[in-house]
Amino acid sequence: MDIRQLFSGEQKDQKVTVRGWVRTFRANRFIALNDGSCLANLQCVVDFEKTPEEVLAEINTGAALEISGTLVESQGKGQLFEVQADSVTILGRSNPDEYPIQPKKHSLEFLREKAHLRVRTNTFAAVMRVRAALSFAVHQYFTQHGFYQVHTPIITGSDAEGAGEMFRVTTKDPSQKSDEPDFFGKETNLTVSGQLEAETYAMGLGKVYTFGPTFRAENSNTSRHLAEFWMIEPEVAFNDLDDNMDLAEDFIKSVLAYVLENCKEDLAFLDQRFAQEEAKKPQQERSPMGLIERLEFVTKNEFMRVSYTEAIAILRNSKPNKKKKFKYPIDAWGADLQSEHERYLVEKHFSSPVILFDYPAEIKAFYMRMNEDGKTVRAMDVLFPGVGEMVGGSQREERLDKLIERMRAMDIDEEELWWYTDLRRFGTAVHAGFGLGFERLVLYTTGMSNIRDVIPYPRTPLNAAF
Amino acid sequence: MDIRQLFSGEQKDQKVTVRGWVRTFRANRFIALNDGSCLANLQCVVDFEKTPEEVLAEINTGAALEISGTLVESQGKGQLFEVQADSVTILGRSNPDEYPIQPKKHSLEFLREKAHLRVRTNTFAAVMRVRAALSFAVHQYFTQHGFYQVHTPIITGSDAEGAGEMFRVTTKDPSQKSDEPDFFGKETNLTVSGQLEAETYAMGLGKVYTFGPTFRAENSNTSRHLAEFWMIEPEVAFNDLDDNMDLAEDFIKSVLAYVLENCKEDLAFLDQRFAQEEAKKPQQERSPMGLIERLEFVTKNEFMRVSYTEAIAILRNSKPNKKKKFKYPIDAWGADLQSEHERYLVEKHFSSPVILFDYPAEIKAFYMRMNEDGKTVRAMDVLFPGVGEMVGGSQREERLDKLIERMRAMDIDEEELWWYTDLRRFGTAVHAGFGLGFERLVLYTTGMSNIRDVIPYPRTPLNAAF
Repeated sequence: MDIRQLFSGEQKDQKVTVRGWVRTFRANRFIALNDGSCLANLQCVVDFEKTPEEVLAEINTGAALEISGTLVESQGKGQLFEVQADSVTILGRSNPDEYPIQPKKHSLEFLREKAHLRVRTNTFAAVMRVRAALSFAVHQYFTQHGFYQVHTPIITGSDAEGAGEMFRVTTKDPSQKSDEPDFFGKETNLTVSGQLEAETYAMGLGKVYTFGPTFRAENSNTSRHLAEFWMIEPEVAFNDLDDNMDLAEDFIKSVLAYVLENCKEDLAFLDQRFAQEEAKKPQQERSPMGLIERLEFVTKNEFMRVSYTEAIAILRNSKPNKKKKFKYPIDAWGADLQSEHERYLVEKHFSSPVILFDYPAEIKAFYMRMNEDGKTVRAMDVLFPGVGEMVGGSQREERLDKLIERMRAMDIDEEELWWYTDLRRFGTAVHAGFGLGFERLVLYTTGMSNIRDVIPYPRTPLNAAF
Repeated sequence: MDIRQLFSGEQKDQKVTVRGWVRTFRANRFIALNDGSCLANLQCVVDFEKTPEEVLAEINTGAALEISGTLVESQGKGQLFEVQADSVTILGRSNPDEYPIQPKKHSLEFLREKAHLRVRTNTFAAVMRVRAALSFAVHQYFTQHGFYQVHTPIITGSDAEGAGEMFRVTTKDPSQKSDEPDFFGKETNLTVSGQLEAETYAMGLGKVYTFGPTFRAENSNTSRHLAEFWMIEPEVAFNDLDDNMDLAEDFIKSVLAYVLENCKEDLAFLDQRFAQEEAKKPQQERSPMGLIERLEFVTKNEFMRVSYTEAIAILRNSKPNKKKKFKYPIDAWGADLQSEHERYLVEKHFSSPVILFDYPAEIKAFYMRMNEDGKTVRAMDVLFPGVGEMVGGSQREERLDKLIERMRAMDIDEEELWWYTDLRRFGTAVHAGFGLGFERLVLYTTGMSNIRDVIPYPRTPLNAAF
C-alpha cells in the first residue's frame, strides 16, 4: 500500500507493510520512509533492541526497505500517523560514502549531473508530481470540452514555421559521405510543431489538440529554452481570434485550478521553497506574490488583452524606453518585441498575464490570418510574469488566395504544402489554435527558475546525457 | 454548439446555429451535416423556394456551411432531431469535380494517399475518436491508480534494447562529409523505448508511466509495423512479474471497458464495418466473434497465463507442427516464437488473450531478471488474436552483480549505462514494467486490419508524406 493511502488513516491500528526508501534515520529509532507517492515521509519507529545490528547498520539514506508493523496515531508533531515497526528488511543497500543524495541541500546544478537520482529529493519529486498532474489536467480539460487528441507526426518532411532550426532524422551516418537513399527516401526532420497536421484534423473532427514532443536545434543556452520540449496545440474549426483567446485563458485557468486542488501538499512545499529563493534576490527583483498566491491570482483574474499597437504605445512612453534602459529601444510601430519589452508589460505595467494580439504581418508566420488593415495578422501571444511567452497562437488564414499570396511572399514551398492548401480548397472555414510550451507552464506553476529542472532529462546544446 | 450536444435535445424547439461540412445533399432539400463531434450527421431541411439558387448550387459534399434554424423532432427515420433551416451560409465551397472524398466507398489504400482528408470519412473519424478515447482512458487509468506520467527523452544517447535499428538525430547534413561537432557533441538517436529512464523515476516516485512516441528504423513493410509509433510504458517499484501481469491485464481491460462505455456510437459503426470485412474472408479465416463481442469477451474473461515451457509443449504437439505446416517447426526448447506460433496459441489453441512468461534468457533483453533456474528470465508477452504481441514486459534484474554479468555477456556498454546500473547500487528493489504498443491496441479495438489506418500520418519505409 502506498504511503499516500496510509495517510488516509483507514488502516489505523492494523498491521501494514510498507516499502520505500530511507530519507533519514535518527537516534537509531526513527526512519523517515518515502515511496514517492507523496511528499510526506512515513515515520517508522524501530525497536533497536529487537533489531539485528547488521540491519540497523544498513538503514542509511537511500536504502530500500520493507517494513511491517502497526499503523498508529503519532505522538510526535509533524505527522498524524506512524508505523510501529515489527520487522525491517533491507531490500537494497545504499553506501553512505557513495550515495550522492545525502540529506542536505544540494545545488540544482549538482543535481542536474545526477538527473537519474534527483527525483529522490523533495524538490524534484514535488516538481515532477505537479508536472504529471498538469499533464493529466490538460487531457481532462480537452476531453471534457469535446476535443479529440491527435497524435501528429514527430518525423516530418514539412516545417510549420517556415523557419526554425531543425534536427535531421536519418539512417545514414553523417560522418560518412554516402549516396544511398535514406530511410524515408527524402529529407526528414523532427517536428517543430504539430499545428499544420492538427489543422487537417480540426477540419474533420472540429475540435482537436496535440500534446507531444517538439524540437528546436537552436544554439540557445538559456534558462527558458530546451532543444526538446512538449507542446500542447489545440486547433478548433469555426473559432476566430476572440474564441481562441477565450480558450487559451480558460484552459490555463482550468489546469492551474486543477493543480491548486489536487497538489496541495506539493504546492505548499514549493511555495515555501519559492519564498526562500525569492528572499535571496534583491528587493526590486522579488516576485510581488508568493507561488500559490500567484496561481490563485491567475485563476481568479482576467488576463489583460492588449493589441500590439497599444502595447507599442505603452512601451514607447515607458520610463525604461525614455531613459534608454531597453537594450532594443522602441521607436516605431513594427518592431518585434523582445523579452525585455514583454517583461516590462507583464511584470511592471500590467502585473498580470497579458494577451497581445494583432501583430504586424511582417514579424509573424505565413499561416496567420491577415486583418482588413492589410498590415496586421490575427496573431496572439500570452505572456506570463517570470516565464515570458507561454502561448503563441493565431486565427489561421482560411482564404486560399490570401494564403498563397503570403506563402509566395515568404518563400514557403507551395508544392510541399499541397495538402495544407487543400484545406482551403475543400470546405474551408474560419479556424484558430495555439501552442503552449508545456515546460513553461510547469516552470510557472512550480516556481522553479530553470527550465532544465522541470523536465526529467533536459536536452540542450552539447547535452543529451542519460 | 456541437452537433453531439444538439442531439441531447435540450435545445428542442429553439433557434440554433450549427456549422459543419456537407456529407450529402438530397432532393434539393435534405442536408446531412457533420461537424466531427460525433458520427451521426445532423439533418438540416432547407426550403429550396426560399433559398437563393447560387447557395443551393454550392451545397456540395465537403462544403463548409453555417445553418441557422429551429431544432425539431424529426419525422424521418434514423434521427431523433433535425434542423428546419431559416438560413444557409456557404463558408467554404467544395468543387464536386475536384473534391476526392465523395459519398461512395473509397479504398483504404486510396485514402492513405489523402491522409489529410481521410478523417472526413465515417470510418476514419470513428477510428480517430476511438483512438482519442483510448488515449484518455490510459491517462485516467494510471492517474486514478496513483501513477505519475514521466516524459522520458525522445532524443537519446542510449539504446534500451541493446539492439534495434535506430534513427540518427543530427544537425549535420548526411550527404556532406563534415568533421564539425554535432549539436549534442555526440551521437544521438531517436528513442526505441523510455523504459530505462522510466526505471530511474520508478525508483523515486514509485509508480510511473510513459506515453510517448518511439521509433524503429527497421525496413519492415507489414500491416503491423510502423517506424514511428506511440508506446505506453508503466514501471512500478516493488512489483514482481505476477504483479506486472495483473497490472497489464487490469489495464487493458479497463481501457477497453472505457471505450465500450464512452464510444458506443463509433464502436457500433466499426462493429458493422468489421462484420462486412470479415464476411469477405474465407470462412476459416473469419473472426469467431464480432468486434464489440470480442471487446466484451476480453474485459470479462481472464487472460490465459502460460509459461514459455508449457507453450513449447503445446506447440510441439500441435497439429500444424506435426503436419509440418509451420514455416519454423518447433522441435526444441529455446526456439524464439514466431508470429505463426503466437497466432496458433492465441487464435486456435486458447481463443483468448494469452500471457506467455518465463522465456529463455538467450532470446530476451539484458535487463530482465534471471530466474533461479539460471536459464529463463522473468519476461512476459501479452498476445492478442489478430494483432499478435500487444505487450512486452518483464521484472527487471535488480541485482547489480547479475545485471553486470548479463551486460557483459550481451556486450552492452556498461560505461554508457552507468546511471542505469546506479539504480542497483543505491536502494535497489524488485521492480517491473511493460511496454504496450498503442497502435496495436487501437487496431484491436477498432477492428481495422492495417496499422497505417489507425494513426493520422503513418511513417514507414520510403513514406513520410505530410
